Amino acid sequence: MKAKVGVIMGSDSDLPVMKAAADLLTEFEVEYELTIVSAHRTPERLYQYGSEAEAKGLEIIIAGAGGAAHLPGMIAAVSNLPVIGVPVKTSKLSGVDSLYSIVQMPPGVPVATVAINGAKNAALLAVQILARQDASLNKKQQDYRKKMKASVLKTAAEVEKLGYQAYLERSNKFAK
Amino acid sequence: MKAKVGVIMGSDSDLPVMKAAADLLTEFEVEYELTIVSAHRTPERLYQYGSEAEAKGLEIIIAGAGGAAHLPGMIAAVSNLPVIGVPVKTSKLSGVDSLYSIVQMPPGVPVATVAINGAKNAALLAVQILARQDASLNKKQQDYRKKMKASVLKTAAEVEKLGYQAYLERSNKFAK
Amino acid sequence: MKAKVGVIMGSDSDLPVMKAAADLLTEFEVEYELTIVSAHRTPERLYQYGSEAEAKGLEIIIAGAGGAAHLPGMIAAVSNLPVIGVPVKTSKLSGVDSLYSIVQMPPGVPVATVAINGAKNAALLAVQILARQDASLNKKQQDYRKKMKASVLKTAAEVEKLGYQAYLERSNKFAK
Amino acid sequence: MKAKVGVIMGSDSDLPVMKAAADLLTEFEVEYELTIVSAHRTPERLYQYGSEAEAKGLEIIIAGAGGAAHLPGMIAAVSNLPVIGVPVKTSKLSGVDSLYSIVQMPPGVPVATVAINGAKNAALLAVQILARQDASLNKKQQDYRKKMKASVLKTAAEVEKLGYQAYLERSNKFAK
Amino acid sequence: MKAKVGVIMGSDSDLPVMKAAADLLTEFEVEYELTIVSAHRTPERLYQYGSEAEAKGLEIIIAGAGGAAHLPGMIAAVSNLPVIGVPVKTSKLSGVDSLYSIVQMPPGVPVATVAINGAKNAALLAVQILARQDASLNKKQQDYRKKMKASVLKTAAEVEKLGYQAYLERSNKFAK
Amino acid sequence: MKAKVGVIMGSDSDLPVMKAAADLLTEFEVEYELTIVSAHRTPERLYQYGSEAEAKGLEIIIAGAGGAAHLPGMIAAVSNLPVIGVPVKTSKLSGVDSLYSIVQMPPGVPVATVAINGAKNAALLAVQILARQDASLNKKQQDYRKKMKASVLKTAAEVEKLGYQAYLERSNKFAK
Amino acid sequence: MKAKVGVIMGSDSDLPVMKAAADLLTEFEVEYELTIVSAHRTPERLYQYGSEAEAKGLEIIIAGAGGAAHLPGMIAAVSNLPVIGVPVKTSKLSGVDSLYSIVQMPPGVPVATVAINGAKNAALLAVQILARQDASLNKKQQDYRKKMKASVLKTAAEVEKLGYQAYLERSNKFAK
Amino acid sequence: MKAKVGVIMGSDSDLPVMKAAADLLTEFEVEYELTIVSAHRTPERLYQYGSEAEAKGLEIIIAGAGGAAHLPGMIAAVSNLPVIGVPVKTSKLSGVDSLYSIVQMPPGVPVATVAINGAKNAALLAVQILARQDASLNKKQQDYRKKMKASVLKTAAEVEKLGYQAYLERSNKFAK
Repeated sequence: MKAKVGVIMGSDSDLPVMKAAADLLTEFEVEYELTIVSAHRTPERLYQYGSEAEAKGLEIIIAGAGGAAHLPGMIAAVSNLPVIGVPVKTSKLSGVDSLYSIVQMPPGVPVATVAINGAKNAALLAVQILARQDASLNKKQQDYRKKMKASVLKTAAEVEKLGYQAYLERSNKFAK
Repeated sequence: MKAKVGVIMGSDSDLPVMKAAADLLTEFEVEYELTIVSAHRTPERLYQYGSEAEAKGLEIIIAGAGGAAHLPGMIAAVSNLPVIGVPVKTSKLSGVDSLYSIVQMPPGVPVATVAINGAKNAALLAVQILARQDASLNKKQQDYRKKMKASVLKTAAEVEKLGYQAYLERSNKFAK
Repeated sequence: MKAKVGVIMGSDSDLPVMKAAADLLTEFEVEYELTIVSAHRTPERLYQYGSEAEAKGLEIIIAGAGGAAHLPGMIAAVSNLPVIGVPVKTSKLSGVDSLYSIVQMPPGVPVATVAINGAKNAALLAVQILARQDASLNKKQQDYRKKMKASVLKTAAEVEKLGYQAYLERSNKFAK
Repeated sequence: MKAKVGVIMGSDSDLPVMKAAADLLTEFEVEYELTIVSAHRTPERLYQYGSEAEAKGLEIIIAGAGGAAHLPGMIAAVSNLPVIGVPVKTSKLSGVDSLYSIVQMPPGVPVATVAINGAKNAALLAVQILARQDASLNKKQQDYRKKMKASVLKTAAEVEKLGYQAYLERSNKFAK
Repeated sequence: MKAKVGVIMGSDSDLPVMKAAADLLTEFEVEYELTIVSAHRTPERLYQYGSEAEAKGLEIIIAGAGGAAHLPGMIAAVSNLPVIGVPVKTSKLSGVDSLYSIVQMPPGVPVATVAINGAKNAALLAVQILARQDASLNKKQQDYRKKMKASVLKTAAEVEKLGYQAYLERSNKFAK
Repeated sequence: MKAKVGVIMGSDSDLPVMKAAADLLTEFEVEYELTIVSAHRTPERLYQYGSEAEAKGLEIIIAGAGGAAHLPGMIAAVSNLPVIGVPVKTSKLSGVDSLYSIVQMPPGVPVATVAINGAKNAALLAVQILARQDASLNKKQQDYRKKMKASVLKTAAEVEKLGYQAYLERSNKFAK
Repeated sequence: MKAKVGVIMGSDSDLPVMKAAADLLTEFEVEYELTIVSAHRTPERLYQYGSEAEAKGLEIIIAGAGGAAHLPGMIAAVSNLPVIGVPVKTSKLSGVDSLYSIVQMPPGVPVATVAINGAKNAALLAVQILARQDASLNKKQQDYRKKMKASVLKTAAEVEKLGYQAYLERSNKFAK
Repeated sequence: MKAKVGVIMGSDSDLPVMKAAADLLTEFEVEYELTIVSAHRTPERLYQYGSEAEAKGLEIIIAGAGGAAHLPGMIAAVSNLPVIGVPVKTSKLSGVDSLYSIVQMPPGVPVATVAINGAKNAALLAVQILARQDASLNKKQQDYRKKMKASVLKTAAEVEKLGYQAYLERSNKFAK
């Protein structure tokens, strides 16, 4: 099947963060492709990727980048598709630089920005958008939320039952 | 026709900013509804709005808020729909508070955040999402981008032809 | 005895921080309950917790959260009780995001915000509030302050007597 | 009747901000006293005010200050009462300096911090605390919230009925 | 004569700031061209401008932009020429967003960043670079510095002679 | 008499801020000299001023600067005298740039930094330092503090007597 | 001999930072005393320390504190002596909170602020101030600067002679 | 051959960062000299270095510094050459202090600022500037960019071929 979501990032050093997007799309059985596109080192590739994206069947592009993070905004400039930007945390400015570079787009060219290192939420947002025209995916999304809720309720019940000290001790034991 | 986009905001003081979203949706002939939903002063209304949104036919919710801006994140918590958050500029912290409150959502519940006061881009993002299943809207979107491009090129040509001094003088005269 | 203070947090990952609130309440023999309530993953639970809190006898709610920290503000929106918010430190923005999300509440719905990771002070604030109608608790609070003062004076005396070099050496030895 | 809330501030230049606290307390018919106490220019007065506060019948102190805002924290150091701190906006650092100086208190001495310039919420928080032992005040507080809610709903209804353009035009006309 | 410096900016709204670069180049009799190139609205134009720049004789590009300011970094990505970036002040984040978007470039593609709104210094930097291969321009630059120095010394002498009160009064009178 | 305090600043645009230092020194009858020394435009003058300062009888240098504010730190580098730095507020970064440039000096070369635009306090600090060897100046300083205290107490008494509404009305009337 | 400099800090956890001040004063053979004074936990001690300081012979007070760092400003409020404030780095806000709390003092009560964790420079500033009335100390200070300068020149010479690679290798070997 | 680029830094503690500039210049076979010049501890050396730079054949100066980073701006003040500033990351303020101290230069004296710790890009910028008058160096620069591009494309191809999981596993294995 053809990929519906393109997951791109500026460098393979972003992969440990961006991997969460691919993992989630896999979990939802959404077809995606993942690759490296550097805005600054491969500008022609960026241009090509963005301008061919719609024609080859992509519906959404998820783009992650750090520092002077131009990839999400530039891919949004060369494609009509919705672009979701993931600001990657940086060692110097903690990702505030990435966040500002991605979110503060001028009128006319939006980037749907998620939290710093929020690759999982980027993928969930893509799922929500695709689910608008895919009832089965919408159902999966609702189930995912139910499981999330159930997991919180289970944790809450355990903390209440064990007490927080015992709960923390057990967590620490498992962590070893 | 039924509204496809819900445009909500925490207070009527956000209306001068959020109005740009409604204006753009009108320009694209996308049906929308616009109202006030305060996360803090009308939490039940927030809950009701979010949980009924999908059933009544909305496809996307655009939510604007300032300061401890909880509306976008909470509406995302009570609805399955994609939520686009607009951080409204504040007089004290310039909207950095709004931005952080909206964009830093935890894994599981995304908000597609746009620039501070970026209501127009929120609407464009909604158009991009709806255009995924509406070829005519997609065409409009492409035309919009072409016009935007043409407008920049026209401005560039004028600046080049007149020289920047004459261009600025003319702009100042028009501004009077 | 019925709990007077509700200590809640968005996730069990906040427990190592929020535990200090429970420890302090235990030390002051103030009845409390502690559990997990996620604003984003369990919004109905949040609504229920907040709206039942007063009826079931709670006097104060302490709520801790990190990132787009909506729990304290939303619990304040659905309950009449005083809400004390604890901004939990985050790995990306050091808790500035949590702080802004909690403290910058709009007129009408206050959250009493303490320092980043200030769970102990949240509990002390709860004690101060309860002590307004409980002379014995007020006495305990005064004694606590006296002990705190005495401890500083003792440290000061030791530093003065030993000299700072010897004091630091002794501290380092004890730390091993 | 004796004052239950002490409203203090570092300078009469804080009065235009702090006045909102007094106004709200008046509206709720809560007895208060309001005066100037400068931590830096009248430290003895600060010491005296704080150490006599409980004995003279105060239940809560609301303290507003800007810049290196030491008044709330120091009054909390010399009194057992709950202290609510209001960071006053500054012309240079927008009140971030005030906020950090007030909220980042060390373990042992809490200050219940509200939003920058959040004097009204400081008073509402005081009302919430006093309402714990005053059923009639609690009733007033609930009514206040209901009115707030009704006001939002009325605004929402008007915006929906008039449409946002007409609503904004009307607002602008009234503003003239 | 052919232009040696290209002065570009994302929008004609940047012109009041960027004009200072053109004025300074005129003063130094350095040939330049000035136009509008929007990274987000005219990405092909950006690509074309950057890739033709060297061939058409440009030696340096000065690029100004605000917000998610991608123009300087992207033009640096598509051209071999030294690129000087001017972060334009924004109404929301004062240009910190522009600054971070421009200066935090990844290894491999530098942008020589000057102060927020520092268009004049961008042009001076261009002059310094061109002066490396143009002794007459280097002489002009040295003279410019000497005049700058002389102007400070003159001001200093006047302040010392008149006294600061009289100096300020005179300045205020001239300002009227 | 010979000047004991040198008040310098980077530009005459700093004079409206730095004037407060001169006014206060005049009030305390401390001899001073005031002039312009630009670190960046007149580096030789900076070097000369700093290295001659002690020999010509100065005891303290007060240096104000904004932006990349190098004057205080560099004057501290070329003189043995205590240097007091005044970060001048800037239109772009509100003086945070000035503050960081002045206060974050490396080990070995301190600058005594006061608040943004804190020229008056810079002069008071100079008075405190000179008062260490001048009993009459020390007396003046104590009197100054007493007057300051008396002024706060008088204001407090008026606010208490008039009530805050009447006090504010009176202030507004006087302001006209 | 009587202490001329008082070195105080809010907690013994500040000692590893503040120790550098004591070490430097020892090196210069300036008599000092060092102790713990907590603004928030021992406000009476703060008041007493500050008001007795001058009478017992202190000339300068160095005060270090972190977070809502009120010690330097409050000690400046209760004493006529010059107060040097050291903002101690915090684990949550890196000492920006400490810096703002210390440096942003209101007109009338200055604190001479040094860099975050700048205890050594605080002591050097104290030496500079004391050296104004002590020619032998002034000589020591000049010698200290000369040694500092010589040390930089020696390092520079070594880097130049060895080359940076060899220099770094040697440094790394010594570090083992 | 004579050095064309001077690489200087405030302390040998900046060497691990600044070394990347020297490494890159070596790779491009550009003659450089590298040494230590402290603005604060050796101001005369700074003055001498800057004022002799042009005469001894340097074309460009790269200056790195951290904290109150005055070296780049002061060397720009005493030399006509283009100065490239490298803000070195600091342990307290992450290099935001260094960045602001370097980039916010006043009109008249520019510093070409690169990213925090961006020493490699500083050298690349120097190469770009020198390449304006050296066709062979320009060729090298183009080849460098081509290699960079090829390297990204190779990585992209591998990630696409192996899949991200296998790619990450392989990377982790190599990292051991």
